[in-house]
Order: sequence, then structure tokens, then C-alpha cells
Amino acid sequence: MDKKLIGIDLGGTTAKFAILTADGEIQQRWSIPTNINDQGSHIVPDIIASIKHRLNLYNMTSDEFIGIGMGTPGTVDRELGTVIGAYNLNWRELQQVKAPIEEALNIPFTLDNDANVAALGEQWRGAGENSADVSFITLGTGVGGGIITNGSLVHGVTGAGGEIGHMVVEPKDGFQCTCGRKGCLETVASATGVVRLARTMSEEYAGDSKLKFMIDDGQEVSSKDVFDLAVANDHFALSVVDKVCYYLGLACGHLGNILNPSDIVIGGGVSAAGEFLLERVQAYFNEFSYPQVTESTQIKLAQLGNEAGVIGAASLALIFK
Amino acid sequence: MDKKLIGIDLGGTTAKFAILTADGEIQQRWSIPTNINDQGSHIVPDIIASIKHRLNLYNMTSDEFIGIGMGTPGTVDRELGTVIGAYNLNWRELQQVKAPIEEALNIPFTLDNDANVAALGEQWRGAGENSADVSFITLGTGVGGGIITNGSLVHGVTGAGGEIGHMVVEPKDGFQCTCGRKGCLETVASATGVVRLARTMSEEYAGDSKLKFMIDDGQEVSSKDVFDLAVANDHFALSVVDKVCYYLGLACGHLGNILNPSDIVIGGGVSAAGEFLLERVQAYFNEFSYPQVTESTQIKLAQLGNEAGVIGAASLALIFK
Repeated sequence: MDKKLIGIDLGGTTAKFAILTADGEIQQRWSIPTNINDQGSHIVPDIIASIKHRLNLYNMTSDEFIGIGMGTPGTVDRELGTVIGAYNLNWRELQQVKAPIEEALNIPFTLDNDANVAALGEQWRGAGENSADVSFITLGTGVGGGIITNGSLVHGVTGAGGEIGHMVVEPKDGFQCTCGRKGCLETVASATGVVRLARTMSEEYAGDSKLKFMIDDGQEVSSKDVFDLAVANDHFALSVVDKVCYYLGLACGHLGNILNPSDIVIGGGVSAAGEFLLERVQAYFNEFSYPQVTESTQIKLAQLGNEAGVIGAASLALIFK
Repeated sequence: MDKKLIGIDLGGTTAKFAILTADGEIQQRWSIPTNINDQGSHIVPDIIASIKHRLNLYNMTSDEFIGIGMGTPGTVDRELGTVIGAYNLNWRELQQVKAPIEEALNIPFTLDNDANVAALGEQWRGAGENSADVSFITLGTGVGGGIITNGSLVHGVTGAGGEIGHMVVEPKDGFQCTCGRKGCLETVASATGVVRLARTMSEEYAGDSKLKFMIDDGQEVSSKDVFDLAVANDHFALSVVDKVCYYLGLACGHLGNILNPSDIVIGGGVSAAGEFLLERVQAYFNEFSYPQVTESTQIKLAQLGNEAGVIGAASLALIFK
């Protein structure tokens, strides 16, 4: 019988699990709530218990698995199998992950950070179509990313490879970023960034606009509101979306000219705007990429949604094959 | 006896050759003029004859070599071992390179483009200190580059990986680039780009400046003049150099945030300005890179000069080891 993979996508609210074939077909999926109490000390035991329970349920044994891969927030030491600084898990101090899981389950275990793992998922089984060179941008609460070149993740010298959200796209008078710099992509293309941009631009907009009215009226405005109103042809909302897409197109141009990937895949909540977003990013990408890159590097929407994490995590375990 | 490598750095004026140990120590060096007459049809035969002659001279035989690597201008098909569109060699049409060389010399042969090969040289034996993640920018007539991640060159899907010179660093009102886009790094940081920037900025400069006088006087001005005058504290020249370094620091910031390489190595003629250039690029890099990247990615000057080509070319042949 062909051996299987286990993928774990660990987040601050839930941990998602899947059992997959070595080709990345999901066979079983489940999830458990993440218990972050007591410095997150329950998380690893809960993961172990959940896998043990499921293997019993499915009547499977450790030797039927190639390995387990996991994506996690925080700073990962891939060699030691530890995590530190994962604040939404309450893992402030160094947390052993690989050692206790391997000891309890007797299955080889490996891990990487969640943005990298989502990138691997999209590259392997999603929009990247298993190409060797794929860049991934995720537009959520923050802007993250992952870079795959020659079939492998780029971690760089200290694991900060793929910090796409901190590319400076507004070098003059950019917004202050949480990282300490100014003008990072995250300050204008994350969910909060889109709203921040709308608020700032609204001060100078004079025409009629529902979006401007909502802002001036002190109503709660989300990035989805901005995109929905743009689709509904609110001129001010359209100008905000155009600016967001200018920044994204510029960042994609840099990625393209440096790496010439087959695909730049855009995922995350803000990308729910779909083709409406994509065609505008594409137009700016065409302007900001070297002609050979414009022709050969495709800008695409992510395809796997929430499943990118477990699929990409599982693919990490292919090193044990 | 340990087997050797041959590295060839083919240019429009000369072809440089070296015999190296498998560790990259140069043991013999020579060069021949490049004969670009008759559609460059003499180039490959001349390379073959020169290597045969030298092997005789040194009393060496084919089986003493691991392989031959070559860097060349133009678009390379690495699989087929062909080159096309190398205009300074007069290779406009598809040129067979690997097949005739391997047949005549009976030594495995491989090739890549000259910017990639120079990057490999600096990564292996130069400023990159054999690190797995190195980015290389060369500031010459144009601005080229090469990207090494996880120990391998990044070619991308059509070989346009490393087109660092075409990163758009001036998205608004940038200079027209030969590539068809506007605001590319090459338009402001190549030898001609630096002078173009000086000419444009001189129109708005009102103070006293030898550089401005030379430009207004219609004198020939080189990028070296701009840097020399800046070193001599010409305030206008300093403002031009500052702008060039701003663009370079921004581009290095993008490279750093995407790849977090251990080193970004700057070479080529314009980098002869040395530490004077480097410290100004570093200051802008600090502003435009994610803090973890600022701390871990070093900006360095290239160390191998003209020898980067033959050394990097030779390293290509290590695949035959």
C-alpha cells in the first residue's frame, strides 16, 4: 500500500489536519480548537492526542505514513524543530515541537512557517501547477508570502526570505509600518491597509461617493466594503482600488524581474475580490515588468483557499520519502 | 591526480580562459581576441583550437578534466547548449556551442549567460564566501545581475530571472529604458544612467558646481567624473550620487526582503567608486529593508573583478563531477 502524508495547519483559533496521498490528494480532514491557555502548553499534547485518536478511528498505524509536516506562526528553527515568538499561540518562549511529536507518534516530523507552507500548497496542488518557480503573496490582516525557486522554498540566511509584505512600495511619505519602516506593501494592501489608504485618500476627494460618506460619517468600513463599492462603480472606491492594485502590480513587477517565476499567486482575504482585483494588478504588472517577464510570468488567484495550509504542510514531509 | 575545470568567459572583445582546481583555484590563465567576422562563425573553432593548443602546451589530456563551463552574452538554451541573439558576437541566429566543443575536445561542456556566471564566481570564490544565498548586481554599460538561492542559480521560467536592471525604481516619470518600460534601475545606475541623471538634475541645480559647469559647457562627462567630483565634495555631484545610491538601496531592499540573501554583491565599472558608493547604498538599504533583513543581509563590493567570469564559468562544470 502506498504510504500517506499528514499535514497540519496550526493557527491561533484552530489546528487543521489532513491525511493525504503522496500525490497530495486529501483523504481525511478534521480540525480541533487551539487551546492557547497556560503559555500554549496544551497545543502539542492536543495535536498528538488528536492524531492518535484519528489513526485509531481509521485503523491506521505509524508505519503507514511517510511523515508529518506542519505550518505554524512564529519563528521556526527547522533543524531543531522548535518555534519561538508565536504570539497568537502564546508561544513566547522557545517551544519544542518536533521532538515530542516524533517521540509520541513515531512518525518523522518537519515544520515551516505558515506563509511558506501556504505557498508550497498553492505551488504543489493549486495555481502553481507544480511548477519549479512560484511566488505567493497572501493579503490578509498582514501581507505575507513565500518564494519557491528551482522547486525549493527560499528561506534566506535567517528565514526572512519571502517578506513580501515589507517591500517598500511608497518610498516617499509612506505610511508607518509595524515593522518600523515606512511605505511597506502591508501598509496599503492588507485588509487594514486598504482601509487606511481609503481614509487618507478620502480627505482629498471632493466628488460624490458612498464610500467617502461612510468614512466621513464615522461608519465602520472594511476592505470588503471598499472593493464592493468599487465593483458598484463608486468612483472614489475605484480610485482606492486602483491605488492598491498599483502597489501590488509594482511589487509583482519586482518579483517577476528578480525571479521570473511561472506564476505569482495572490491569495488571502483581500484576494476574494477576484478577477476585479486581478485584472487591475495585471495592468500595472505589465507596466512594471521586463517585457520577457510580462510575457512569461502569470499573475493568478490562489485556488486552494483554506486547504493550502494542510496541503503545503503535508508536502514538507515528502523529504522523508 | 585531482581533476581540473576549464572556465571560459566569452565577450565581444576577448575570450578569457582559465584552468582551475575543483576548489576554484586558478592554475593557468590566457585569453584570445574574439573574431566576430562572418556572423561570428570563427568563435567556436577559435575556442576549440585555443584549448587544444594549451592542453598540448601544458601536456594535459581530456580525461584530466571534470568539464568546461562558459559564460556568454545572448540568450542561452542550457539544455541544448545553444546561444541566440548575442549581438556583440554577431550571433544573431541560433548558434551551436556545446555540440561542436564536446565533439572536438571530448570534455563535458555547459554554459550560462555572462551575468549569471559572474554571479556564480562572486558567490563561490568572491564576496559571497560560498554562501547558499547570494544576489549579484553588476553596474556597467547596463545593469545586470544574477540570483543564487539554496546554492543554485535562479533562471526562472524563461531565463529572465536576475533581470535586476529592469526593476522599476522610479514608477512616476522615470526615464525611458531600452527595454520599452520606464524608470528601470538601469536608466539611473548604469554608467550612462548616472550621466543621464546628472544631466537632468543639472537643469534644476542653481549653485556652484564643477560638474554642472562641465555639463552646461558641453564637455564629455563620464560616470567616473560624477563620482570623482562627488568625492572631491562637489555639492551637485554629491546630490547625483545620493540619488543613484537611493535607487540602488531601494533595489537592494527589494532583493533583501524577497530573498534575505547573506550577501548582495555589487560589481561592474560603476562600483569602482568603492566604499564611497557602498556606505551610501547601505544607508538607503537600511531604510528600505525589513529589520531582520537589515541585520542579516550584507551589502558588499565584488572582489574578483574580471576573474569572476572564468571562475563562475568553471563552477558550472562542477555538475559533471
